[in-house]
Amino acid sequence: MMPSWLTVLLLSPLVVGLDLPNYEGLLTSQKPGVLEVTFHNRHSTTNLWNGDTLFGLTDIVRRLQNDNETKAVVFKSDVPKYFLNHLDLQIEPFDPTVASRMIELLYNMTNLPQVTIAAVEGIARGAGNEFLVSLDIRFATKAHTLLGQPEVGMGLMPGGGGGQYLPRLIGRGRAMEIILSSKDVTAEDAEEMGWINRAFDTSAEMHAHIDDLVSRLVLFPLGSLGAAKQSINRATRPPLEDLLMDAASFLERLADPAVQTTIARALTATRNQSDSYGEQFLGEAIPTFYG
Amino acid sequence: MMPSWLTVLLLSPLVVGLDLPNYEGLLTSQKPGVLEVTFHNRHSTTNLWNGDTLFGLTDIVRRLQNDNETKAVVFKSDVPKYFLNHLDLQIEPFDPTVASRMIELLYNMTNLPQVTIAAVEGIARGAGNEFLVSLDIRFATKAHTLLGQPEVGMGLMPGGGGGQYLPRLIGRGRAMEIILSSKDVTAEDAEEMGWINRAFDTSAEMHAHIDDLVSRLVLFPLGSLGAAKQSINRATRPPLEDLLMDAASFLERLADPAVQTTIARALTATRNQSDSYGEQFLGEAIPTFYG
Amino acid sequence: MMPSWLTVLLLSPLVVGLDLPNYEGLLTSQKPGVLEVTFHNRHSTTNLWNGDTLFGLTDIVRRLQNDNETKAVVFKSDVPKYFLNHLDLQIEPFDPTVASRMIELLYNMTNLPQVTIAAVEGIARGAGNEFLVSLDIRFATKAHTLLGQPEVGMGLMPGGGGGQYLPRLIGRGRAMEIILSSKDVTAEDAEEMGWINRAFDTSAEMHAHIDDLVSRLVLFPLGSLGAAKQSINRATRPPLEDLLMDAASFLERLADPAVQTTIARALTATRNQSDSYGEQFLGEAIPTFYG
Repeated sequence: MMPSWLTVLLLSPLVVGLDLPNYEGLLTSQKPGVLEVTFHNRHSTTNLWNGDTLFGLTDIVRRLQNDNETKAVVFKSDVPKYFLNHLDLQIEPFDPTVASRMIELLYNMTNLPQVTIAAVEGIARGAGNEFLVSLDIRFATKAHTLLGQPEVGMGLMPGGGGGQYLPRLIGRGRAMEIILSSKDVTAEDAEEMGWINRAFDTSAEMHAHIDDLVSRLVLFPLGSLGAAKQSINRATRPPLEDLLMDAASFLERLADPAVQTTIARALTATRNQSDSYGEQFLGEAIPTFYG
Repeated sequence: MMPSWLTVLLLSPLVVGLDLPNYEGLLTSQKPGVLEVTFHNRHSTTNLWNGDTLFGLTDIVRRLQNDNETKAVVFKSDVPKYFLNHLDLQIEPFDPTVASRMIELLYNMTNLPQVTIAAVEGIARGAGNEFLVSLDIRFATKAHTLLGQPEVGMGLMPGGGGGQYLPRLIGRGRAMEIILSSKDVTAEDAEEMGWINRAFDTSAEMHAHIDDLVSRLVLFPLGSLGAAKQSINRATRPPLEDLLMDAASFLERLADPAVQTTIARALTATRNQSDSYGEQFLGEAIPTFYG
Repeated sequence: MMPSWLTVLLLSPLVVGLDLPNYEGLLTSQKPGVLEVTFHNRHSTTNLWNGDTLFGLTDIVRRLQNDNETKAVVFKSDVPKYFLNHLDLQIEPFDPTVASRMIELLYNMTNLPQVTIAAVEGIARGAGNEFLVSLDIRFATKAHTLLGQPEVGMGLMPGGGGGQYLPRLIGRGRAMEIILSSKDVTAEDAEEMGWINRAFDTSAEMHAHIDDLVSRLVLFPLGSLGAAKQSINRATRPPLEDLLMDAASFLERLADPAVQTTIARALTATRNQSDSYGEQFLGEAIPTFYG
């Protein structure tokens, strides 16, 4: 008969850290102390945020809450030109709780003791940018990166917390101009404003910087990382009730019949949200929806 | 008999948007969706803020609260070298509620769904800068623009909210230096700090940027603009009770007899607040009031 | 018999402003309206923060609270390469109230009507940086200046308010990277972020700027300086209860046995906190404590 400790050993997965399942919209890989999450919407050439994204991230966060080995989580994308895009406009069935569930997910992420870091190469827009600005630390390459909140130009408003996290990074005046105009911003301008920590000329330089940063973080006690994060949260994190007011406000705007007209025009201009001039340069394309 | 729809048409004013009266201290003009307000104190070569300014702005804001067509309000000046200046030191009769009424006006402006934008060419100082920093979006030309809060140098303190709005744009450390020293700041330095959104080399470049911005804003639903503004307000607007504490603090300082001595010297140095070296470079002139 | 006015005159100290005793860890000097405080830990080649620092600053603040002549306080150092360093790791006896007493001291300083200004030439790290970021205004020379919070790298977290004051100056994203990584930052980068007001090429330029600033401040009524400071405090100062949560969190981390191991390694690497590569470039040295 097999000794019980051997049974346990054989039944335990031989992985470092978290034992993650396969996700529909995300790829994961692990190194000691580090989880890498790659946005990978296999149904979209523009890495749209959809139900799979929400489900996958929610599951990962729940597991990280009970994990003591991971110290840092690095988010990237394997879809060329798109880091993480806006909410899929054709999401079916449309769930009215999508904004509040997204807000709670992002808020729960700020409470993780693990340090969350974005490596952006490409577009982060709408929900994709709301995910970005709620993380702890953000880097981007200059080529291809465009950041923005296109909601107002769609007749909506940022419902996932963009109006709470972004102004705390770039100030009231710049947030007003960018959010109200629905214009896109380059990585260089975003660095200047404090939207991202730093813009890099090349992907290699960005990943060298992140590797160096993460190589330090994995050495430090998780309790220290978590305690320092909670301290900075006290100073800078939006209150959950203010974030949830954004979700309610988003639903009100969604009930405006004019929004459906704008969405129909957006679908045409972006060839159904596929990789296209309209999707890539959405900030520039928006005024044509009203032509 | 005339059909009722024709009666309505003929009785309706044939104007675009708001039906505004003439104001003593302001000029207005309208384009579809856009109101332009030009500061124009006909009794002052330095565009002093006086009772007419307060009355005119208060009336415009009340009308905008009930207007569904205007999407953006652009503020400029037709007084050379002065966008909007400090409170008229010889205002008669001095009304002790002037600071709190100004604060309520500026706070009400932040609540408008319309987007408020400044096109600064010249000096915005004291109440003029407090007006400026309470707006949604600020641009300035590099030539002639000087921004500042001269109150502490006059023995007072910023009573119209300068201590609440400005530090939220430029940070605690820079706000402390600028407000406590009563020094002026150029448009280039102001851009660097986040005080203004952008500084332009020429007036034409600034107005081209604003025209482009406004041409987008007028396309979007007023409900979207207003909902997004309220979201950013939740993140960055000073609480009204903190603003009103500034008004009370200003009145306390005004009761210090030393202030009247300083004001008398300021009137001499600025040739009664007319266009002069003392008025134009007030930040530099202030130490001479104590000579 | 001596007239009573002469008795009073002869018994009064012939000093300008405050009548300060000698301090163990600080030097002081006075000019009309200005107090200069020089950090001078005579027992440390790296200007460690110890009980003498806390005692001296607390006494000075208590006296400033009752002083009507001083308008500005300038802090500098006479220890080469070190402005003000981290808490002495070998402080004996270790007093668990050290973090909360430091927080109350720094908070009381923000309430002074006098303007507090740092002239940094060298390292301000840990408690030294927490002192720095709680002041009103900060300048530094580019040579030798390094700023940082090494606590997380020591298994601790910033317990003196670094997580509250610093993010309000540099934003959530940059504060997360710097505090969580325990990396040092140069004066030039610190200026860019808003951590300091300005970085200077030479000590002479910095002191000329400070002299000009102070020469203005001494002219203005103390009541104006204090009222304007309280206004900016309302906009930007961390709440005392949030600061005290940091002190509690620091004590929790200190109870982790792993911290003692890291401290032992730090003492070796810094040659008992004396001037050494390890102490001077602590941000770079920290990963070697885990080797």
